[in-house]
Amino acid sequence: MEGKERGVVPRKIKGFRDINASLNSIRWHIIESASKVYRSYGFEHLDTPILEYADALGKYMPDSDTVDRGVYSFKNPEIEPVYQANGRELRDQDNKVVMDNHFLSLRYDLTAPLSRVYAERMWTRHLKGAIHPGKAPLFRRYQFGPVFRFETKLDPGRFREFWQLDFDSVGSNNIASDAEVCMILSEALQAIGLDKTDFRIKVNNRKILKGLLLDIGVEKEEEEQAILRIVDKLDKIGRAGVEAELGKGRKDKSGAVIPGLGLDPSRTNRIIGFIETFAELNPSRTEVLEELSSKIGNNEISKAGLEELEQIDRVLKNVGMNGDVVYFTPSLVRGMAYYTGPIFEVESTQSYTDEKGIERRVGSICGGGRYDGLVENLLGLKAPASGASIGVDRLAELMMLTGKSKGDVVSPVLITVLDQELMPEYQKIAAQLRRSGVDTEIYYGPNPGFKKLKKQLSYADKKGCPVALMLGGNELEKGVITVRNLKLGSEIADTVTDKGEWRRLTQSEVNLKDLVTHVNSIL
Amino acid sequence: MEGKERGVVPRKIKGFRDINASLNSIRWHIIESASKVYRSYGFEHLDTPILEYADALGKYMPDSDTVDRGVYSFKNPEIEPVYQANGRELRDQDNKVVMDNHFLSLRYDLTAPLSRVYAERMWTRHLKGAIHPGKAPLFRRYQFGPVFRFETKLDPGRFREFWQLDFDSVGSNNIASDAEVCMILSEALQAIGLDKTDFRIKVNNRKILKGLLLDIGVEKEEEEQAILRIVDKLDKIGRAGVEAELGKGRKDKSGAVIPGLGLDPSRTNRIIGFIETFAELNPSRTEVLEELSSKIGNNEISKAGLEELEQIDRVLKNVGMNGDVVYFTPSLVRGMAYYTGPIFEVESTQSYTDEKGIERRVGSICGGGRYDGLVENLLGLKAPASGASIGVDRLAELMMLTGKSKGDVVSPVLITVLDQELMPEYQKIAAQLRRSGVDTEIYYGPNPGFKKLKKQLSYADKKGCPVALMLGGNELEKGVITVRNLKLGSEIADTVTDKGEWRRLTQSEVNLKDLVTHVNSIL
Repeated sequence: MEGKERGVVPRKIKGFRDINASLNSIRWHIIESASKVYRSYGFEHLDTPILEYADALGKYMPDSDTVDRGVYSFKNPEIEPVYQANGRELRDQDNKVVMDNHFLSLRYDLTAPLSRVYAERMWTRHLKGAIHPGKAPLFRRYQFGPVFRFETKLDPGRFREFWQLDFDSVGSNNIASDAEVCMILSEALQAIGLDKTDFRIKVNNRKILKGLLLDIGVEKEEEEQAILRIVDKLDKIGRAGVEAELGKGRKDKSGAVIPGLGLDPSRTNRIIGFIETFAELNPSRTEVLEELSSKIGNNEISKAGLEELEQIDRVLKNVGMNGDVVYFTPSLVRGMAYYTGPIFEVESTQSYTDEKGIERRVGSICGGGRYDGLVENLLGLKAPASGASIGVDRLAELMMLTGKSKGDVVSPVLITVLDQELMPEYQKIAAQLRRSGVDTEIYYGPNPGFKKLKKQLSYADKKGCPVALMLGGNELEKGVITVRNLKLGSEIADTVTDKGEWRRLTQSEVNLKDLVTHVNSIL
Repeated sequence: MEGKERGVVPRKIKGFRDINASLNSIRWHIIESASKVYRSYGFEHLDTPILEYADALGKYMPDSDTVDRGVYSFKNPEIEPVYQANGRELRDQDNKVVMDNHFLSLRYDLTAPLSRVYAERMWTRHLKGAIHPGKAPLFRRYQFGPVFRFETKLDPGRFREFWQLDFDSVGSNNIASDAEVCMILSEALQAIGLDKTDFRIKVNNRKILKGLLLDIGVEKEEEEQAILRIVDKLDKIGRAGVEAELGKGRKDKSGAVIPGLGLDPSRTNRIIGFIETFAELNPSRTEVLEELSSKIGNNEISKAGLEELEQIDRVLKNVGMNGDVVYFTPSLVRGMAYYTGPIFEVESTQSYTDEKGIERRVGSICGGGRYDGLVENLLGLKAPASGASIGVDRLAELMMLTGKSKGDVVSPVLITVLDQELMPEYQKIAAQLRRSGVDTEIYYGPNPGFKKLKKQLSYADKKGCPVALMLGGNELEKGVITVRNLKLGSEIADTVTDKGEWRRLTQSEVNLKDLVTHVNSIL
C-alpha cells in the first residue's frame, strides 16, 4: 500500500457530515412537531427533487463548468432541446432543434423549487393568457429536506449540506397571512420544546427601509441591496463599521481593505440615525409603531410598510400575542434580495458555554418574509408569496448545546451469545420481548461465546443498551436467565466501586417465564 | 417573449418528480412503520450526505466530466490534496502536495455510503494494524432517503431519483443474521399494511450457483458475472432466450443482435437444467433443500451455500416461519456483483389493472443479501456484512395501484373570507378549532368577499376540505355561522340533483358557541 500512488482514503466531503442516531432523533422530533403545526394551518406536504435545472431555479446559468454563486452545478450528461420563452423548441437556421447539455444544480433552498413547481403548474394557462394578473391561485405547502451551498470559506459549525423545514403560501397577498407566519413559528417552536422566553420573533418590513433610501436618493436596486447588506452587518461590525463601509471603507482586523460605498456623510447619518433609534431598545410593538410613524416622513412606500406592520400587530393582538414573542425590529434586514414586504427572523435568546468556557449564542434559527417577485422571475406573472423556514440543523444543534434535548435514543436490550447452539432460544426470547414492545437485539458480531462475554457487554455499553441478557446451557436447564441492568450499572458506577457489590446490585437470575415482565419493569 | 432566443421553461429534469401530499403520506407511512420494526431489532438511525467523493463510494473515477456507469458525477469546485493509500498526502518530485479537483457523486444507493462510514471509522485503527482479521466490530444501522441513477433509457414508471429504506449489519458473519433479514422484511411489510399473502420473500445463496459454475469450468469472475446476468433474465426472455444468450446469441424483437457468451451446449444445458429444476415449482423449503442436495454434487462452495440455506431454514422454523412467506428459489440471481452469500428478493404477488385493462404486477419491492467484500474494497480489510432494502417508491406505487392505501390526506377545515373586516373573528374561530385538534385554514387567496364565495368553495373542494365555514356580518350579529359539510356534499352529489335539497342536506346554521362540537361531530 506504500508508494507514490493515488489511493482511496474513506472520507466525507468538507462541509458534509454523517448524522448519528442521537442527532437524528432531535432532527426528526423537530420535523414531526413542526410539520404537525404547519398541517394544522392548512399547509400540505410537498417534496421536490434534490436536483433541478439551474435555470428553473431562477439562477442564471453558470458560464463555465465550475460552481457559481455558491451553488453546486454541473452539466447534464443527457443532451436535450433548448427552449424559447414561449415554450417552443429553439431552432437554428436550418430549422433543426438546438440541443444542449443543460446545467443542473443541487437545490440551494426550498423556496426556489416551490417557485418552479408553481410556475410549472401555471405554465400552460399562463401561455394562453388565462391567468388574470393579481388572481394567481392559492397554493400552501410545507417541505423539508437537505439543501446545498458551496461556501468557499466555511465558518465553524456551518455546513454545505443542511436541512430546512419551510412553509409558504403562494398566491396570497393578504397581510393576515404574514401575521400568521409569526403565529405558526411561535407555535411550532413551542411544540418542538422551546419555552416562549427561549426565542424572539423579530419582524420588519422591507418597504420601510426602501422608502427611507428612496428619500435620500437611492433608486437603483443594486445600490439599495449593497446598502442593506452593510446595514445587515450592524451586529457584527458595529456602528463605526457600518458608517465606514457606507462611506470611505475600512480595514478589517487582518488589515485587509474593505472598500466603502462612498455615500456622503449626510446620507450615511440618515441611515445610521434611523437604525440606531431602534437598534438598542426592545420596546413594545406599539412604541415601535409610534416611533416609526414619526420618523418615516411622507414617503408612500415607507408608509405602506408601516401600515402592514400595524395590520400584523392587530392580527397578533387579536389572537392574544401581545408582545412577549413577536417584536418589531426596524433594523432587521435579512440577506436575500428577493424579499419585498414583511420579513421575519427568529433569534434564540438561549446561550451555552463552549469548550473554552465562553458564553455563546446560536443566533438566528428561522427566517422568512414576503417575496412577491420570485415566481414572476420564472413565470412573468406576479404571484405574491410569503412564508418562513426553520433551520432544522441549527435548531437541533441549539437544543443539544443548551440541554433542551439530549437526543435520547432508546437503545435495544442486548441478548448476548454465550453458546451458538442456543441461537434458537435467543431468537425465541427476542421475539417474545419484541412482541411486548421491547426493542431487542441478538449479538451477531465477532467474538461470540462465553469467554468473549466482556467484549459483547462492551458493545452493549457503547450502544447504550439498558439491559443485557445472558443465557448459557446450565441456566437453560434450570429454566432461568441472567439479567444485567446496564442502566443502573452506569448510574452507580462511580459510587459503588466494589465489583462484587456492583454485580449484586445490577445482576439477577430470573425465571425464564418472568423475563418479559422483569425486563419491562427495568425499562 | 417571442423570438429566436433561449428562454426559461419551468420544468423538472427527466426522471425526477414532485411528490404531492397524497404520495407523501404513503411514503412516510412506509418509512415510519418499517423504521419502527428495524429499531426493534437493534438497528440505529444513520444519515449520510447526498453527495460523496466518487472514489469513497467504491466506484472508480469517471475518466471525463461526463457521467459514467449510471452515476451522476462532477468535479468538486474546490481543489484539495491527493492522498496515497496509506493516508498520507501525495507529493510530487519537488515535494509539493499534489492537488486536484476530486470527482463528487450523488449517492447511487445507501450501501456504498455505509461502507464509507464504516471504513472511515475504522481507518486509523486499520492503518495501525489494530483490527484483527475476522474481528471487525459490529455496526447495525438503518437509513432512508433518495438515491440517484443516471439511466440513459428510462422505462415507464422508473425514476432517476427514488427512495430506499435500508438496514444492514456490518461486522456480522453469523448466518442467523441473514435469517433475521427475512424476519424483519416480513414483519416490516406487514406493519406497513400488506397481508402475508401479498408478497413472497425469495431466498437463494450465491455460493450454490458459483459452485455449479466452477464445476463446469467457469473460474473468472467476469465470466461468472456475465452468466449470472443472463440467468437473471429468465423471467423476461424465457428458457430459449437464456439458452441463446449463453450460447450463440440471438436477435431481439426489434431485430437487434444480442451477442452470446459462446458457451458450449453441454455447459449451457447444465446451467439451464439446474435452473429449470426449480424455476417452475414453488415447493416447500424442505423439498428445495432435498432437491439441491441431490443436484449440487461435491463442490465445496455449493455445499457451503446449501448448508447456509439449511441454517436459515432452521432459524425461521424456530420462530414459526414455516414456509408461507419465505421461499427458497435457486434460480434467483439479483444484479449486484457484490453479493457473496445469501441473497433476498421480495416479490409482490398482487396484481392491478392498468389503463388498458391489462393485469400487471409491480414485481420486486425489496432486495438484499450478504456482501462480505464491499468494505474490503475501501478498507482493505474483510468486514462481513448483510442487509436489505425496501424500495419505498415502488412499494408506495404498489399500494396506490392495488388500493392497499389511497394516500389519504386529512385536509383542513376552510374558513372562507366573506368580509375582510371580520378577519379577527376568523382568526379566533381558527384558533379555537385548532386547539380542539381540527386542522383549520383561513382562505388568504385572491377573490375574497361574499360575491367570490364560489371560487373559495371551489378551492376547498379541490383541496379535499371536509368542511367550509361561512361567516358574514349579519350572522355574526346573530351569533351564528354557516357550516357546509363538503364531505357529505360530494358523497351525495350524484344522487341528490336538486340544488335546494342538496344545500338543505349539507348546510346548516350553527350557534357560534357550538361550532367546535359541531365540526368535530362531522369529522
